[in-house]
Amino acid sequence: MISAWFFDNIRSVDPYVEERALKHQAQLTKPPGSLGRLEEIAVRLSTLQDRDRPSADKIHVTVFAADHGVAQEGVSAFPQEVTSQMLENFVRGGAAISVMCRSLGASLEIVDVGTVAGDTDRPGVHNRRAGEGTANIRIRDAMSEAQLEGSLQAGREAVERAVDAGADLFIGGDMGIANTTPATALACALLKADPKVLTGPGTGLNPAGVLHKAEVIRDALHRCAGVGDQPLEALRCLGGFEIAALAGAFIRGAQLGLPVLVDGFITTAAALAAVRHDPAVGSWLLFSHRSSEPGHGEILKALKAEPLLDLSLRLGEGSGAAAAVPLLRLACSLHNEMATFAEAGISEG
Amino acid sequence: MISAWFFDNIRSVDPYVEERALKHQAQLTKPPGSLGRLEEIAVRLSTLQDRDRPSADKIHVTVFAADHGVAQEGVSAFPQEVTSQMLENFVRGGAAISVMCRSLGASLEIVDVGTVAGDTDRPGVHNRRAGEGTANIRIRDAMSEAQLEGSLQAGREAVERAVDAGADLFIGGDMGIANTTPATALACALLKADPKVLTGPGTGLNPAGVLHKAEVIRDALHRCAGVGDQPLEALRCLGGFEIAALAGAFIRGAQLGLPVLVDGFITTAAALAAVRHDPAVGSWLLFSHRSSEPGHGEILKALKAEPLLDLSLRLGEGSGAAAAVPLLRLACSLHNEMATFAEAGISEG
Repeated sequence: MISAWFFDNIRSVDPYVEERALKHQAQLTKPPGSLGRLEEIAVRLSTLQDRDRPSADKIHVTVFAADHGVAQEGVSAFPQEVTSQMLENFVRGGAAISVMCRSLGASLEIVDVGTVAGDTDRPGVHNRRAGEGTANIRIRDAMSEAQLEGSLQAGREAVERAVDAGADLFIGGDMGIANTTPATALACALLKADPKVLTGPGTGLNPAGVLHKAEVIRDALHRCAGVGDQPLEALRCLGGFEIAALAGAFIRGAQLGLPVLVDGFITTAAALAAVRHDPAVGSWLLFSHRSSEPGHGEILKALKAEPLLDLSLRLGEGSGAAAAVPLLRLACSLHNEMATFAEAGISEG
Repeated sequence: MISAWFFDNIRSVDPYVEERALKHQAQLTKPPGSLGRLEEIAVRLSTLQDRDRPSADKIHVTVFAADHGVAQEGVSAFPQEVTSQMLENFVRGGAAISVMCRSLGASLEIVDVGTVAGDTDRPGVHNRRAGEGTANIRIRDAMSEAQLEGSLQAGREAVERAVDAGADLFIGGDMGIANTTPATALACALLKADPKVLTGPGTGLNPAGVLHKAEVIRDALHRCAGVGDQPLEALRCLGGFEIAALAGAFIRGAQLGLPVLVDGFITTAAALAAVRHDPAVGSWLLFSHRSSEPGHGEILKALKAEPLLDLSLRLGEGSGAAAAVPLLRLACSLHNEMATFAEAGISEG
């Protein structure tokens, strides 16, 4: 695995572009800093996109779907067949992320990285299936090395399609019944955290269900002791196909210089794995929202990430990132279109 | 004043519309509650707009501009002529709110409620001037009764234009150098709060400047002792023309059944006056963002308001409300366009 693509260099940024963007912000007709995080976003996008007029017009959203063997432990409020039913809903345009992408004019693609249902050639779905769902992480490794590489590759390809399409920004979404369990296990391993602290209700477990889920995760961590300092091995032992695909996408985005807007709990766990794999990936990640899944805050803290939104979302699919897209667009418009003090003939404070 | 329009009844809402909206949300293809505040917004707009398909497409933004006699106390980081210079900037499309309205496809109108500069007939600006700026509230009442009524009326008329244009939502913005001083004084009077607690840097005072500003406000409150239980009288003694216009707009919105999206510090102080004038106004107000002006949190708490955004904005002009508009639009799209479990043939949890 040592010579694989995911060890390639991460793109570096030009500090002069950032300097120019900051200088431009200071000339716009507003008290300095009064647009708060909208200024910060514009400067950040300008720097990452290496252009004086940043843009968030062309958004490429990829939702990665997969199933999880650990679902058999009863760790989700929904039955496993929902993953595949939701694939259909994405394609037909009825899911939250479908509606949001339509509303935002964003392009949406769906990648099956390994759902259980056997229908391997669904129209409108990229088939990058690494298996029929992962193994149950309570009792065995989630996937083989080949499956891990296949999943990372599925993420890489999605980002390459986004780059080819001229996207300004990449969003990765997740769909997978029970996937807060592997995501929490992965985060616990990488953060060396107690599952009791990070485990939450996911799509709607009751308190007893959360306790049981934490025990399942504790067993998985016990089984995989020592993977915490090997992010890719942690992904293989504890993760999921869609989580690995997200990590692969984030790594590839950082290699190719395509900024990524990270969604909620699942994608942030994938981002953590990507950043632990190569810390330079972190510069390319923007964080969209704080999920109501309780463990999200701990992962964000470890990544020193301050998401833009806090709306008690906990859906996944990339929906929280989609909700933040209009803020990025407004930040770009303000940066690109506001008059300067000189242009408007306004006295500076 | 007793028989004036602003004592008319506030529109009441139909509880059955809310019930239907909640029921509809529960059928959409997502775990219940997983869209968090986006669900809440959709249900709220559906209820207030009295329709099953809520909308935030047509947005009417009015920026009220005025000057403040208290500027002569040196309570702002910017000189007073900036108010009028910014009026020009609004009209020419170079200000933050101009850019945002263009980006959102929202209609923007500017009302001069009493700036100092004498040019009374600027193209593109509604002339509803109640005077050449208010008096210096440190030493005398901000305005006469007639000026108060004129300012409230300016707000009323803006909302009536919005209703006539078929707006789904009204946003009021403010422009007025030094206007955090009257807004803070007004809030202190209505909340019976210490100016030391509520006073902040506005557009950029240093700590000594903030201390001085708090003393000016303390003097004004001392002069107007006892107005705290008379919201309109507090507006007259301590407020500003644009603050009174915003209060008038909010009252009229609530009377005519047009939901209002409240911006930041200045507009929330105006909203507080409107709600103290008639508590029923509160149902018609949605709160967009938490300003970085420190006193904002106290006023929001008194109004039991939880704004949607917290982006360290402190510009005014309605810019924070504009930033929240896309969230309202996404909330409506999700409510109106997502598939139900039955439509999508998906197993419920």
